[in-house]
Amino acid sequence: MATQRIRDFLATHRSEGPCLVVDLDVVHENYLNFEKALPQSRIFYAIKANPAPEILRLLVSLGSFFDAASVAEIEMALAAGATANRISFGNTIKKERDIARAHALGISLYAIDCFEEVEKVARAAPGARVFCRVLTDGEGAEWPLSQKFGCVPSMAVDVLRYAHHLGLQAHGVSFHVGSQQTDLNAWDRALSDTAFVFKSLEQEGIQLQLVNMGGGFPTRYLKDIPTVQTYGMSIFDALKKYFGNRIPETIIEPGRAMVGNAGVIRTEVVLISKKGKNDNVRWVYLDIGKFNGLTETMDEAIRYPIETAHDDQAMEPCILAGPTCDSADIMYEKTPYLLPLSLTIGDELLIHGTGAYTTTYASVAFNGFEPLRSYVI
Amino acid sequence: MATQRIRDFLATHRSEGPCLVVDLDVVHENYLNFEKALPQSRIFYAIKANPAPEILRLLVSLGSFFDAASVAEIEMALAAGATANRISFGNTIKKERDIARAHALGISLYAIDCFEEVEKVARAAPGARVFCRVLTDGEGAEWPLSQKFGCVPSMAVDVLRYAHHLGLQAHGVSFHVGSQQTDLNAWDRALSDTAFVFKSLEQEGIQLQLVNMGGGFPTRYLKDIPTVQTYGMSIFDALKKYFGNRIPETIIEPGRAMVGNAGVIRTEVVLISKKGKNDNVRWVYLDIGKFNGLTETMDEAIRYPIETAHDDQAMEPCILAGPTCDSADIMYEKTPYLLPLSLTIGDELLIHGTGAYTTTYASVAFNGFEPLRSYVI
Repeated sequence: MATQRIRDFLATHRSEGPCLVVDLDVVHENYLNFEKALPQSRIFYAIKANPAPEILRLLVSLGSFFDAASVAEIEMALAAGATANRISFGNTIKKERDIARAHALGISLYAIDCFEEVEKVARAAPGARVFCRVLTDGEGAEWPLSQKFGCVPSMAVDVLRYAHHLGLQAHGVSFHVGSQQTDLNAWDRALSDTAFVFKSLEQEGIQLQLVNMGGGFPTRYLKDIPTVQTYGMSIFDALKKYFGNRIPETIIEPGRAMVGNAGVIRTEVVLISKKGKNDNVRWVYLDIGKFNGLTETMDEAIRYPIETAHDDQAMEPCILAGPTCDSADIMYEKTPYLLPLSLTIGDELLIHGTGAYTTTYASVAFNGFEPLRSYVI
Repeated sequence: MATQRIRDFLATHRSEGPCLVVDLDVVHENYLNFEKALPQSRIFYAIKANPAPEILRLLVSLGSFFDAASVAEIEMALAAGATANRISFGNTIKKERDIARAHALGISLYAIDCFEEVEKVARAAPGARVFCRVLTDGEGAEWPLSQKFGCVPSMAVDVLRYAHHLGLQAHGVSFHVGSQQTDLNAWDRALSDTAFVFKSLEQEGIQLQLVNMGGGFPTRYLKDIPTVQTYGMSIFDALKKYFGNRIPETIIEPGRAMVGNAGVIRTEVVLISKKGKNDNVRWVYLDIGKFNGLTETMDEAIRYPIETAHDDQAMEPCILAGPTCDSADIMYEKTPYLLPLSLTIGDELLIHGTGAYTTTYASVAFNGFEPLRSYVI
């Protein structure tokens, strides 16, 4: 799964410790696939997935818009050449002074999900456009979003009405079906709720214009996933079903699906051992773990494809752990990982699908280990 | 629980975003308490708990030894003035070239827990002293260590014999009862296993000398904990029980208990909201969360004491979450946290007991948020 460009790069570049290599050609291809699959939707790249400047600059050149989680991410997008009208402040949890900073930088689109946040935006970014996030059930997602963001649809109606009364533009509704979502019906359910909010406010004379369909598009790890094209058709069908021939402006916020499959981590086997002479499970310790890049193995949520030089040989289930003195630094234990019996200390492994949610998640220096190095080629 | 020095510092220092303040006087007092409670044991501070140079320098001046998890931590201890004979390379998972680096820096004490690691140490640090970590059950610990480190006691006998045959000094046995351990019997059980390894090897003419009793000493969060003095007496009783009047050299590796209660984080309430009009649980969002300092709230393991300016008023259970767009960034949800009804957006909170396992755990820049700032006074 690693591209030839990544393999060539790794063959000639050595670095002490693990490193991530991201192939911009793959990001480029992912962007074009989204454009093709959802031609009516604007693409807002979720910067948090991987804010490498090279990625942001490429996406700016392709015409992408950006979803920022913080003022720092807004500044990264601006530094990469995006104009302020292409950036949304998509975090529903914002300090009022950060909204004021974003406003000063020209940002005019904000996520909200409660009355309190509407008041902050009305004070700090008067006249801005706001979209209200509604809760979805997150069913079918490998990294479900629980209840942290959004409010129930009936409350969204009240929140957007309140925004309208405070002089903001009640602009639309957003939802997020949960990361790595493979149930195509998830969008259908969320769009049904969205249409309810649109219709309720329309009856009061408030015309919403935007449906922010969020992210959730998966990247391929071990299991096959539906194509972006399939997602596009299914989403378009749901839009027609709930909005008829008056489909509003739509945006999507892919993060993982834009960069996940573009990245590969090279890591080294530090130790292979057993805990007792008669144990039949081997522990394999890598120089990367939960605290220097593989945070998303938390609760064994994301199961990355791992490539070794011996994958044609006999395999056995292993417990896979990271290099720190922290016992929480175990990637796969409840469901051990199949690795070749001939795997040896010092072997190099490639961990695929690691372009998203790896570099910025890494600890500053836990146990003295440095954060994940990254090369964008 | 914050000292007057910390309160004075916070009253005069403003910083954007959350910050940790550590009071060196408390670290000093903790060190003296350990010395008094376990006068026969050498203290090896677990650097990973908080490697701030000011802390390391203070401990060097007090005569502390150091437990390092990586070459970087060894270098930090040396930079703080510790001599190499005061540093142990305590991670059982080490690259051979890191062992060689440590050896070149003069380190002569290494943790091992399997045959493979013995071979690496024998090649890269010939003649070094090694101690073998045995598995403990971790019962009673709030942050149990599972099976990641150590081997069963019978295998430890074989591993140490192997070390002896490869020209290393089979120096001793280590164990770790699990972090934040409040069951005093945990040390008794581990010392029983340790004595078994000592006796088995003694019968073969190999005389071990060191018992590394690890860390696990708790810091006070919400619940009262036994005093260090109580731990000391209980451990000494167990040592007498298993070693009679031939008690070997012992060392302890406190980390959390040395710095945890010395630190206080100041944070700000970013948002308080509900998810529906009839919801009776409030969500309280702070500018600190699981990814910029409070990693140990993972699985709601560590429950920090939180101080507000309204603690004398009526309280209600709240869900406490961090500022990122990640739904895993929730500190307390399964067991909501009691906070005052009058708590308002913009209020400052103090999170106590945060001197250990906070700064270095923080993400590099997840969602664009910067790592936890730290001041050592």
